[in-house]
Amino acid sequence: MAYTFNVVMTCSGCSNAVNRALSRLEGVEKVDISLEKQEVVVEASTLTREQVLAAIKKTGKEVNE
Amino acid sequence: MAYTFNVVMTCSGCSNAVNRALSRLEGVEKVDISLEKQEVVVEASTLTREQVLAAIKKTGKEVNE
Repeated sequence: MAYTFNVVMTCSGCSNAVNRALSRLEGVEKVDISLEKQEVVVEASTLTREQVLAAIKKTGKEVNE
Repeated sequence: MAYTFNVVMTCSGCSNAVNRALSRLEGVEKVDISLEKQEVVVEASTLTREQVLAAIKKTGKEVNE
């Protein structure tokens, strides 16, 4: 299952932080982040969209569900 | 109790994210962030340093304990 989120990221420090936070989350298989498109795609077959969203929110970044 | 952490932040999007994540944490009374000094000061009388540190780590930012 792949989930796509629109996340406000303004520098590579921002996108690296989101990448790091999601990669640490158990169940996450792949994280693809586009700073240019402000887009985060997460593959995680054992997690719900809500679980992934909760982890993104904990980064403090603004995310459009 | 005030805890001070050295956190790698490269833009105001980074520091705003850390601020937002910590302000949402129950028990946090005040957050002071200096992007210039790469410093995060958190006042939280009911939380341990480890609890605050765990929340900072969830932002995905690199933190020097």
